[in-house]
Amino acid sequence: MNAKPILIYDTTLRDGSQGEGVSFSLQDKLNIAERLAEIGIDFIEGGYPLSNEKDVAFFREIKKRNLGNSKVCAFGMTRRKSMKAEDDPGMKALVQAETPCITLVGKTWDYHATEVLRVTLEENLAMIGESGEFLARSAELIYDAEHFFDGYNANPEYAIKTLKAAASAGATWLSLCDTNGGTLPERIREVTAAAIEALADYDVQIGIHCHNDCELAVANSLAAVDAGATQVQGTINGIGERCGNVDLITVMSNLSLKKKGYSVLGGRSLKPLTELSRFVYETANLQWRNNQPFVGQSAFAHKGGMHVHAINKAAKTYEHIDPALVGNERRILVSELSGRSNIAALANKHNLEDDRELMDKILAEVVRLENQGYQFENAGASFDLLVKRVSGTYTPHFETIKYRVVAGDRSTESEQRSVFAEAIIKLKVGETLWFDAAEGHGPINALDAALRKALADEYPMLAEMRLTDYKVRVVESSSGTEASIRVNIESCDEHESWGTIGVSENIIEASWSALVDAVEYKLHKSEKK
Amino acid sequence: MNAKPILIYDTTLRDGSQGEGVSFSLQDKLNIAERLAEIGIDFIEGGYPLSNEKDVAFFREIKKRNLGNSKVCAFGMTRRKSMKAEDDPGMKALVQAETPCITLVGKTWDYHATEVLRVTLEENLAMIGESGEFLARSAELIYDAEHFFDGYNANPEYAIKTLKAAASAGATWLSLCDTNGGTLPERIREVTAAAIEALADYDVQIGIHCHNDCELAVANSLAAVDAGATQVQGTINGIGERCGNVDLITVMSNLSLKKKGYSVLGGRSLKPLTELSRFVYETANLQWRNNQPFVGQSAFAHKGGMHVHAINKAAKTYEHIDPALVGNERRILVSELSGRSNIAALANKHNLEDDRELMDKILAEVVRLENQGYQFENAGASFDLLVKRVSGTYTPHFETIKYRVVAGDRSTESEQRSVFAEAIIKLKVGETLWFDAAEGHGPINALDAALRKALADEYPMLAEMRLTDYKVRVVESSSGTEASIRVNIESCDEHESWGTIGVSENIIEASWSALVDAVEYKLHKSEKK
Repeated sequence: MNAKPILIYDTTLRDGSQGEGVSFSLQDKLNIAERLAEIGIDFIEGGYPLSNEKDVAFFREIKKRNLGNSKVCAFGMTRRKSMKAEDDPGMKALVQAETPCITLVGKTWDYHATEVLRVTLEENLAMIGESGEFLARSAELIYDAEHFFDGYNANPEYAIKTLKAAASAGATWLSLCDTNGGTLPERIREVTAAAIEALADYDVQIGIHCHNDCELAVANSLAAVDAGATQVQGTINGIGERCGNVDLITVMSNLSLKKKGYSVLGGRSLKPLTELSRFVYETANLQWRNNQPFVGQSAFAHKGGMHVHAINKAAKTYEHIDPALVGNERRILVSELSGRSNIAALANKHNLEDDRELMDKILAEVVRLENQGYQFENAGASFDLLVKRVSGTYTPHFETIKYRVVAGDRSTESEQRSVFAEAIIKLKVGETLWFDAAEGHGPINALDAALRKALADEYPMLAEMRLTDYKVRVVESSSGTEASIRVNIESCDEHESWGTIGVSENIIEASWSALVDAVEYKLHKSEKK
Repeated sequence: MNAKPILIYDTTLRDGSQGEGVSFSLQDKLNIAERLAEIGIDFIEGGYPLSNEKDVAFFREIKKRNLGNSKVCAFGMTRRKSMKAEDDPGMKALVQAETPCITLVGKTWDYHATEVLRVTLEENLAMIGESGEFLARSAELIYDAEHFFDGYNANPEYAIKTLKAAASAGATWLSLCDTNGGTLPERIREVTAAAIEALADYDVQIGIHCHNDCELAVANSLAAVDAGATQVQGTINGIGERCGNVDLITVMSNLSLKKKGYSVLGGRSLKPLTELSRFVYETANLQWRNNQPFVGQSAFAHKGGMHVHAINKAAKTYEHIDPALVGNERRILVSELSGRSNIAALANKHNLEDDRELMDKILAEVVRLENQGYQFENAGASFDLLVKRVSGTYTPHFETIKYRVVAGDRSTESEQRSVFAEAIIKLKVGETLWFDAAEGHGPINALDAALRKALADEYPMLAEMRLTDYKVRVVESSSGTEASIRVNIESCDEHESWGTIGVSENIIEASWSALVDAVEYKLHKSEKK
C-alpha cells in the first residue's frame, strides 16, 4: 500500500513566537529555519513582514540560504476594509518579502467580521477574494481560515463561502484553524469532512491548524487527517500562545510511526527529531519539557522496579516504540522504588553487566548513598561519576582544599539594607594551587563564579557549560532545618543536559558537591573526545 | 437531559509518584489526599503497602482523617505464582491497609504472562481469580487490567478471559489500562466497546487508565467514556512515569465543560481546580507547567496585539471557555496582572471581601510581590502577615539590625574535612539590643538557632514551635544560580502548621525572610489568645 503523504507546515517562527516567554533574535530565526529545512519540513512560516523589521530582515537573509525543497512562507492578514488590495501596506509587505509562498489569514466567523472588524459579511468576502487574487500573482497562496470551526458552528453556509472566496482567488491550500483550541476531535473530523466535500469542485487541498487549549491538539490534527486533510500546521515542541500550538514532533511521530497509511517528510527518517526539539528549546532559552512525548528526556525513562525488571526481559512490555526511531534513548532511573533491576540496567549501559563483583560494589555504594538521602534518578551524571569512582577509573581534575561563603545583610552607616554573598576557594589543579574569591547574587552563584575563575586557565571548555536549574529539598522533612538537604543541579552545554546531586546537613556543602560533580562530568566528557 | 456521572479515580500518590523527580513525604501524601477529598474526587489511590514503610504509615494515618465520600484505595499485584492468596505477603499487606477499596492489578497480555512472569495462561487466570476472591472479602475490589489494549491486540479472547476472571471474583470495577500509552483514540473506543459488550452479563462497570506517550491520553480517556466507560483514572497535572498519566484536571474540565451529557464530582464546581493544580506542584516541588490547559498561568494569557484587541471587544473570540469556571483568569501580558482569583480566594478566607479599598491595596501588593517571584498558595502565614501590614495592624515583635552566615569546609591541620556553619545576628527587641551567635548543621539552621537564642527571654513560647519543612526553588530557572530563589518554610506547634515564604537572589536572605515570618506568625498568634 502506498502511504499518503501529509505535508508539514511549521509556524514556530511566527505563531510559536507568540508564546509567553518566547523571543527569537534574527539569528535564532535563521538558525531554526535551516534546521527545519535540513530535516525536510515542507513549509516554513518565517514571520509577519508588516509587524516588524526583524521579520523583514529574516526574509531578506533567508533567500541567501539553501533550504532544499522547503518553502518559506510570509504571513499576513487580508487587506483593510474599504481599500484596494494593491494599496494596502500589509499586502505590499507580503509581496516584497519575495517568498515562494504567502500565507493569508482571513475571518470565517460572521460574528468576528461584524463585531470585531466591523465590516459587512460581503465586504469580508471581498477582502478575502481581492487580497487572495493580488497575492496569488506573486507566490503560491495558502489561505488560513481563522476560527474556522467556531465560524462553521455559528453559520456553516457563510464559513464555506469564505473558503470558496479564497479558493476562487487562487489559493492552493485552505487551512482550517481551530484558533481558540476549543473544538473536540469528533467535531473536527465532521467539519473537516464537510469542508472537503463542499470544496470538491475546487482545485485546492485542505490543511489543519490546531491549538492545545483542551489538550486535544494532537488528536484533533490526526482526526482532520483521517477526514482528508493533507497538511498539518504546528510548531516544534508545541510552543505558542496560551496552551500552545500542536506539537509537530508528536504529530509527525504519530503519523509516521503509529498510524497506518501516512508518510511525512517524504519518507525521511525521524531520527533527528530529538535533537531538533532540544535545539529549539535551547535557541528559545526555554526549559526542556522532560515528559514530552517521543523526544522528552523522560519519554523512555523507567523508574518502577517492576517495569525495569520487565524491560530487561522484553522492551515492548513498557515501550510503545523503539526510542531510537526518533533519536531518543531508554533511561533507567535509580530510585527508592526500584530494585536491583534498575542498577543492573544502568550498569548495562556502562558495559559492566559481566563484572558481577563490580556490580555488587556499585549496588552497595548506591544503597549506602540512598540511605543518606541521595536519589540518582535526576542525577545521571553523578551516577556516571560514581561508577567511575567505584571501578577505579575516576581521575579528579582538581582537588578542593577548602571553600567558604559569607552571606548576609551587611550593616552600613546609612539606613539602606544591603544583601551580599562572597565565596573564597582554594583548589589544587595538577601541582598548582589556586586561591580565588568571587562575589555573587547568592552563595551558590558566588561559589560557581569562584570555581570557574580558578579553573578557567586549565579548562577553557568550561565556558561552554551553564547551570540551568537548581533545586533544594529537605530529605527527611520531619526535623526541619536540621535534616539533610538534597541539592539537584541541572547543567547543559550545546549537546546535552546533565543532572548532579549533593546531600549534606549543610546546604552549602550539598551545593558544592553537586557543583563539583557538574564540572567534573563536563571535564570527563571533554576528555573522551 | 440527565448528565451521566463519570467517577474520578486519582492515582497521583501511587502512579504519579513514579514520575521522574517526584518524591512525596508522608506528610505530602496526607495533605494531597485531604485536598483531593475536599474537591470531591471519588477514589484516592494512596500507595502500594507492600513496597515501603511510608505507604504503610499513610494508610494508618489516613484512617484518622475525614475524607467525606472519597474512598481510599490500596494498590497491589496479584498473588505470586504457585502460592495461596492468603499466604502471599502482598495480599496480606493489602488487607492490613484496611482501606474501603483495594485495587488489584493483573496481567492481560498473554506474552507478558508467559515471557515476563513465566507462568502458564491458566495460572495467570487463577492468580487473578484467587487474589480477587481473597481481597473482595475485605473491601470493594477494583481490578486494573494492565496492558489491556496491547493484550487485546495480541489475543482478544484471552484478554477478555482475564476480565471475566476478575469480575467473577467479585470486582465491581474493571479498569482498562493503556499501560504503554501507545494506543490511538479510535482503537481505544473500539476495544472499550468490545470489552463492555463481552462483560454485559456481569455486574461490573468499566474504567479507563491512560498514559500520555503519544500525547493522546486525554483524547483516549474521552473516547473510552464515549464508548461507555464510567470511571477515569489519572493524576493531578498528569504527573507520572515517562510522559505521565492522563491529567485529571483536563479530563474533568473537558467532561464537565466541553462535552455534552456527562458530569463529574457529583456536579460540584470546578473552581478549585486551578488552586489544586498549583498545590500539587508546590507539594511535589515541581515547576508549574505554564501552558497547562485550563489551569496553567498562560492558559488564558494574551500576548498578540490583535488578540488582545479582540478580547477587549468580545472575550469569546479568543477564549474557548470562561476561565473563572476552573478558578483561572485572563491575563493580558503587557499589564503583568496575575493571581487575582487566588488572591480573591485568599481574601475570602479573611472575610475581607466587603472592604473594597483594602482589597485593592492587598491586590496591588500581591501583584508587586508576585512579579518578584512570590507565590502565596503555600504560604498562608506570610499572606496573613501581608494583610496585617497592608491594613496597618502589623506590629513587629523584633527588628533585624543585621545578620550574617559563614559556612564552608574548614581547613584543619589533620586530613579530616570539617564542614561548618555559623550565624551572627543583631536584633532589637523593644528597647533592648541582642547580639547573638550560633552554630548549626547548615546556615539556615544556624540562623534559626541564633534567632531563638536572641528571642528566648522575651518570647518563651517560641520553644513550642519547630520547622518541619524547607523547600527551595529557582523562580526564573533559565539563568541557573543567578536567578531569584524562592524559599518555603513550613512550621508547626501542637495546634497547627503554617507556611511562610521568602524570595531573593540570595538564598540566605530569602531563607531569613521566611524564617522571620514564621516566627512573627507564631508571636502574633500567641498574642491573640
